[in-house]
Amino acid sequence: LVSSAEKPRAHLTVKKQDLSPPMGNQFPVLQWEHERGLAFTKNNMNYTNKSLMIPKAGDYYIYSQVTFRGPTPNHSKPVSITQTITKVTDSYPEPTQLLTATKTLCEMGNNWFQPIYLGAVLFMEEGDRLMVNVSEIQWVDYTKEDKTFFGAFLL
Amino acid sequence: LVSSAEKPRAHLTVKKQDLSPPMGNQFPVLQWEHERGLAFTKNNMNYTNKSLMIPKAGDYYIYSQVTFRGPTPNHSKPVSITQTITKVTDSYPEPTQLLTATKTLCEMGNNWFQPIYLGAVLFMEEGDRLMVNVSEIQWVDYTKEDKTFFGAFLL
Amino acid sequence: LVSSAEKPRAHLTVKKQDLSPPMGNQFPVLQWEHERGLAFTKNNMNYTNKSLMIPKAGDYYIYSQVTFRGPTPNHSKPVSITQTITKVTDSYPEPTQLLTATKTLCEMGNNWFQPIYLGAVLFMEEGDRLMVNVSEIQWVDYTKEDKTFFGAFLL
Ligand SMILES: [Mg+2]
Repeated sequence: LVSSAEKPRAHLTVKKQDLSPPMGNQFPVLQWEHERGLAFTKNNMNYTNKSLMIPKAGDYYIYSQVTFRGPTPNHSKPVSITQTITKVTDSYPEPTQLLTATKTLCEMGNNWFQPIYLGAVLFMEEGDRLMVNVSEIQWVDYTKEDKTFFGAFLL
Repeated sequence: LVSSAEKPRAHLTVKKQDLSPPMGNQFPVLQWEHERGLAFTKNNMNYTNKSLMIPKAGDYYIYSQVTFRGPTPNHSKPVSITQTITKVTDSYPEPTQLLTATKTLCEMGNNWFQPIYLGAVLFMEEGDRLMVNVSEIQWVDYTKEDKTFFGAFLL
Repeated sequence: LVSSAEKPRAHLTVKKQDLSPPMGNQFPVLQWEHERGLAFTKNNMNYTNKSLMIPKAGDYYIYSQVTFRGPTPNHSKPVSITQTITKVTDSYPEPTQLLTATKTLCEMGNNWFQPIYLGAVLFMEEGDRLMVNVSEIQWVDYTKEDKTFFGAFLL
């Protein structure tokens, strides 16, 4: 019996992104703040290389919200925005898309904001890595920690 | 004191829907995959007849995401989309709407996607049944398990 | 080790709002039903003065959904809608915005609905107060308890 206070959990918040090109055919991966302000990691759930590292097998509630916004210099407004929570596991070569939301944008003024939230319970193995991919990193609102965030907790 | 690992919980994922007509004045009920891929049920929370069966009274976090998409052959684009998590209980004849989201659609291109997420803590009695109703089953994206899902866990 | 059944938690549901003017430069704060229908508070998490009172330090999953709708007499349709979960703490004079979603509206018919969901894990101190602020209280759909709600539970 594990005390609730000893369970792995984390809440990460947005920070300014390096606009590095995506690798392969995956969407770009977001970077996160893991210890300042509202962000924290605890009980061996660590943040490394843009990923939450699962320290202990079990069922986790995993969530993220990304706020997209425009205009972005040199980019025309996207037709749609997509956010995915992805798992990478040592025992399988391809990343697994756990949760995805795609939203088609419609006519809006030049200044626009659209949030997308995802969350669900998923079984994780020790050593699995969790990350958030977005269709276009240029439209992610990284200005405030309460608008774009990512977290998980062992049930 | 119940160990966390022994608590009822489930995560169901979308599958192709039978387009059966709705019954009475309720919205159509979605069907779910309950054991393949990311889907699971455990600790006596079973999936039967499109419903999650609550095996034990208590407070549950209950959630669902439905991704709606078009175009759909022979249907014009809907004005709005609605998703409801409904409870049926033996002690009361009418279903109870626990959580609902209605979203009005606006002008978008012919190919469109709109996700809606719902989640909250609700008290359930043993024997209660949970299901997800949608305004129009024809627009539900059933193509990928990460886009439309439904789950619950005992706190 | 605290039994799950003894942990503070609450689910509040919408009620008709007093359209009192906002204070200072904060958005208006929503009022909630805390004991009828689906709403409850338990294990010393009380509802007072539009706020959930945190009785015990720890990590809480905190969530809210607000459904906005129109038309509203004497108000033209808003350009955007914003929902924020805010913390007030005795040790700090300014409210802290924990979670925020802003959504730009686009062209829709005269009757429109837009839901926004927020949720995440946040560390709370004993005595902290949680509330939900919205950009314009006139557009909040207060007609049904399943459309607009606010809750929290200690992990
Ligand atoms: Mg929990």
